[in-house]
Amino acid sequence: MRPRKAYEWLVEHHRINARYDSIRELLGWDQRTHLPKGGQANRAAQITTLAGLISGRKTDPKIGDMLGDVEGSSLVRNKLSDEAVNVREWRRAYDRAKKIPEWLAVQIARISSECEMAWQSARQANDWQSFMPHLGSLVELKREEAGRLTTTGTAYDSLIKQFEPGETAESLAAIFSKMVKPLIDLTNEIRESPFQPDPEILQGYSPIWKQKELIRQITGRVGYDLDSGQIDRSSHPFTSAIGPGDVRITTRYRADSFAEALFSAIHESGHALYEQGLPPEHWGTPRGTAVSMAIHESQSLMWENMIARSTGFWKMFYPSLQTHFPWLESIPRDSFHFAVNRVQPGLIRTEADEVTYNLHVILRFELEKALIGREIEVEDLPHAWNEKMKKYLLIKPPDYAQGVMQDVHWAAGAFGYFPSYALGTVYAAQFYAKAAKDIGDPESFFEAGHFGPFLAWFRGKIYSQGSRYLPRALVKTVTGEELNPRHLIDYLDKKYGMLYALC
Amino acid sequence: MRPRKAYEWLVEHHRINARYDSIRELLGWDQRTHLPKGGQANRAAQITTLAGLISGRKTDPKIGDMLGDVEGSSLVRNKLSDEAVNVREWRRAYDRAKKIPEWLAVQIARISSECEMAWQSARQANDWQSFMPHLGSLVELKREEAGRLTTTGTAYDSLIKQFEPGETAESLAAIFSKMVKPLIDLTNEIRESPFQPDPEILQGYSPIWKQKELIRQITGRVGYDLDSGQIDRSSHPFTSAIGPGDVRITTRYRADSFAEALFSAIHESGHALYEQGLPPEHWGTPRGTAVSMAIHESQSLMWENMIARSTGFWKMFYPSLQTHFPWLESIPRDSFHFAVNRVQPGLIRTEADEVTYNLHVILRFELEKALIGREIEVEDLPHAWNEKMKKYLLIKPPDYAQGVMQDVHWAAGAFGYFPSYALGTVYAAQFYAKAAKDIGDPESFFEAGHFGPFLAWFRGKIYSQGSRYLPRALVKTVTGEELNPRHLIDYLDKKYGMLYALC
Repeated sequence: MRPRKAYEWLVEHHRINARYDSIRELLGWDQRTHLPKGGQANRAAQITTLAGLISGRKTDPKIGDMLGDVEGSSLVRNKLSDEAVNVREWRRAYDRAKKIPEWLAVQIARISSECEMAWQSARQANDWQSFMPHLGSLVELKREEAGRLTTTGTAYDSLIKQFEPGETAESLAAIFSKMVKPLIDLTNEIRESPFQPDPEILQGYSPIWKQKELIRQITGRVGYDLDSGQIDRSSHPFTSAIGPGDVRITTRYRADSFAEALFSAIHESGHALYEQGLPPEHWGTPRGTAVSMAIHESQSLMWENMIARSTGFWKMFYPSLQTHFPWLESIPRDSFHFAVNRVQPGLIRTEADEVTYNLHVILRFELEKALIGREIEVEDLPHAWNEKMKKYLLIKPPDYAQGVMQDVHWAAGAFGYFPSYALGTVYAAQFYAKAAKDIGDPESFFEAGHFGPFLAWFRGKIYSQGSRYLPRALVKTVTGEELNPRHLIDYLDKKYGMLYALC
Repeated sequence: MRPRKAYEWLVEHHRINARYDSIRELLGWDQRTHLPKGGQANRAAQITTLAGLISGRKTDPKIGDMLGDVEGSSLVRNKLSDEAVNVREWRRAYDRAKKIPEWLAVQIARISSECEMAWQSARQANDWQSFMPHLGSLVELKREEAGRLTTTGTAYDSLIKQFEPGETAESLAAIFSKMVKPLIDLTNEIRESPFQPDPEILQGYSPIWKQKELIRQITGRVGYDLDSGQIDRSSHPFTSAIGPGDVRITTRYRADSFAEALFSAIHESGHALYEQGLPPEHWGTPRGTAVSMAIHESQSLMWENMIARSTGFWKMFYPSLQTHFPWLESIPRDSFHFAVNRVQPGLIRTEADEVTYNLHVILRFELEKALIGREIEVEDLPHAWNEKMKKYLLIKPPDYAQGVMQDVHWAAGAFGYFPSYALGTVYAAQFYAKAAKDIGDPESFFEAGHFGPFLAWFRGKIYSQGSRYLPRALVKTVTGEELNPRHLIDYLDKKYGMLYALC
C-alpha cells in the first residue's frame, strides 16, 4: 500500500482503539466512584471482555504490514513530524503488544480488576491475609508479562518502560542515588530546627459542601476547565482522562480539615491541565497523547507543591479560604503557609511533604524491583516494607492499612509506576526553573491570580507536544540541559532553608 | 453441530453481547448523570463505535446456523423450557437484526445520542427551532428502520414490537378505546366534586439531603437492594439496569417540595425491583431478561401509584415523613393522602395523576403513529400536540418545554415506547387484583411495613419468569384471564369515588 494510505489506515485503526480505551477508562472511573458492591463481578467481566477485544485489535497483524509500508518512506523522514512520531510510537506499542498473548492480556485485566476491588475492602479492614492471595496471583501474571516483554535488560525494566519510555531500573537508580542523601540530610536538619509549624491550625470544622465550593473555585481559577471535566469523590484521588473534552478528577474529604481534599484536588488538576492541554486534533494518536507518567506526575506534583504551597499562591487565595473556614481568621497567613509546608516523616505517601515524599517512592521502587526480580515474594512484602520505612523515614507502621496496603497501584497491577513520581519531581523542578527564567518570577503571577502566562508556557512547551519527544529529549529541548536532580535539591534547600531558618 | 453444542454456543455468544449492551448502558447512564458538556462528542463517538460492534455481533450469520441446528430438536420440545424460551427470543431478535444493516444501526445510535444531547439544552431554552432538525433526522432514520423491519402490518407496528412483543397499533387501540371515555368521565366527575384536596400542603422547605435520606429509607424498605444499586440525580428520572448486581435509579429534586423526588424515586424503584428480581443465573439470555416495557411500566406505575399513594402505605411512613419535614406535623394524614392523590389535568405527563395519566400517553401514541405513518411531519408536531391536549385534557401548553418537548423518548429515538405506559397501568391493575385475591388485602401489609409477602408474590409470578411468557400469555397464566382494562377502571372508580365522595 502507498505510505500515505497505510498511514491513514493506521490513524483510523488507532483512533478506534482509543475509543475502546476511552470506554474502558469510563468503566474504571465508575468502578472507583459509583459502582455498587453487587456490580463488581459484572464490572470485572465487562473489563475482561473489552480487554480481549482491545488486545486483539492492538495485535492485528495488519498493523505490522501497514507499519512496514510507512517506515523508511519519505513520510517519516523528518523524525519530529506528526507522522514520524506516531509511527515511532505505534511500532513500539505493536512490538510490545505482539509479545503478550490475548489470554494473558485478558487475565491481567480480570485479575487486576478483581484485585483492586479486594484491596478496597481489605484495606478498610486492615486485612492483609485476605488480600495477599489476590496480589500473589497478580504478581505472577505481571512477572509472566514482564518476562515475555523482555529482550534486553531485566524483567522489571520492561514494566518501567510501559510508563517511562527510555528508562531502566539502572538509569533511575542513578538519578535517585543523587537524591537520597541530600533528602535525608535536609529532613534531619529540619527535624532539629527550633522553628516548627503548628499543624493544629489546619484542623477545624470544614463542611464538605464548602470544601467542594472552594475546590471548584481554585481549580477553575488555575485553569482546569470544568465544562470539560468534573470533580467526584473516591477513596483514592485520581484523574481519569476519559476522552477529549472529558477529563475528570476526584478527591477525598474529611469534615475536620479541608487540607487533604484541597491539595489532592490541586494535584489531580495538574494531571488534568496536562490532559486538557494535549492537542485535540491529534486525539487518539501518540502525537496527541501524554508522553510518560513522570511528565504527568511532574505536573501534578508541581501544581500541588511548587505552586499551591507557595507564598504567592496564598497571597491570592488565603482571604477566600478564611471566608470559607472562619476559624482561620485568627491565623496569620505566614503561619498557615508554614503549616501547609510542614516537613514530618509520616506513614502515608500521599500525605507526605515535598522533602520526604521521594523517600516513600524510592522505598516502593526498591521493593517492586525485588518483587518482580523474584528476590522477594508477596508474603515478604510487609516485613520488607517496614524495614525500609525504618531505614528511610525512621518510622514503624502500626498496621497494614497504613503500611504496605496504603496504595492502590500494586493492587491495580501498576508495577513500574512508582518511580515516575520521584522522577516527576525532578522534571518538575527543572521545568519550573526554566519557566521562571523565561517569564519571570512565577510567584508574582500567582500572587495576582494570573495563572495564564505560566500555564501558557507549559501548554506551549510541554502539554501541546504530546509524545513528540521522549521525556529525556523533552527536558533537553525545553531546558537546554540534560535531566538533573540538582534543580530539585536546590529548590528544596532554598524553600525549606527559609521556612525553617536553616543555616 | 449437535443441538446441545449449538445451544451452548448461542448462550455464550449472547452473554458476550449482553456484556457489550451492559457497557453501552453505562455509557448512557453516565451521559444522563455525569458527562460534562465538553465530553458529548466523544460520548457520541463511543456509542457509535460500540453500536457498530454490537450490530455486527447480533447479525453474525453463525447465529442463524446455530439456531437452525437447535430449532426442531428435542431440546426445545417443551415450549416453556429455558432452552425453548431462549431460542424463541434469539430467533426473533436475529430476524429483526438481520433486516437492519450495520450502517443504519450505527447511524441511529449516533443521531439519537446527539439528538438527546441537543434536547437537553434545547428544552431548557424552550428552543423548538434548534431541536427540530435533530428530531427530523432521527424520525427519518426511524422510518427507514421501521420500513425495513416491516413484513406484515404497519411500519409503526414494527417499532411497537421492539418494546411490546405481540402488540400492534390496532391491538393497543382496542384496549385504549375502552379506557378513554371512562377516564374522561371520571376526570369530569372529579372536577365537579365539592371536595378537593389542598395541594399547597405538599409545598414546604425540603432540604435535598433530607429528601435523599428519606428516599433511601423508603426505597430500601420496600425492597430495593442498595448494595446492588444506587440513587443519582438527573434531569429526567430513569432506571439503568447496567448488569447483574448493578441496577441504578435516578430522581430529580427541588428544594420547595419533596413530592416529585420521592414519587419519581419510588416509580424507578418499581423498575429496579423487577430487574433485581430477574433470575441472575439466566442473566444475558432472554430467560433472565424483562419481557416487555409494559410489564416493566406495570411495576413502576404500580409501586408509585397503587402502593405509594395508598392509605396503608402512609399509615406506615407518614410519621417518618413528618420527622423529616416538620411543617407536615400540623397536617392530618388524611389531608396529606388526599393531596398526593389530587386529580388535576396538567401539562406534564410525569407529574400527572393516575386518572389523567393515560390520556397523556394516548395522545403521544396517536401522534407517533401519525408521525411514523407519514400522516404528519416533525414540524406539525407542536400544533398537533396542542390540539390533542385540548381534546383530551382541555389545556393549552404555554410553551414547547412544557408541551411537545417535555419527554426524552422521541429525542432518544424511542418511538413506540409510549403505549407501554398505558398498557402497563392495565397490567398493573389486573396483577394487583389477583395478588390481593391470593394473599389478602395488600394495604394491611403495607400498613405494617411488611412488603415481603407482596413482593414475593410478584417475584415468584412475574419477575423471576423473565421472558418465559410473552406479556399477554403472562397475564393469562398469572391471573387466569385475558388482559382486561376493566380492573384498572374499577380500581380508579373505587379509589377516587371514595376520595372525592362521588356518587
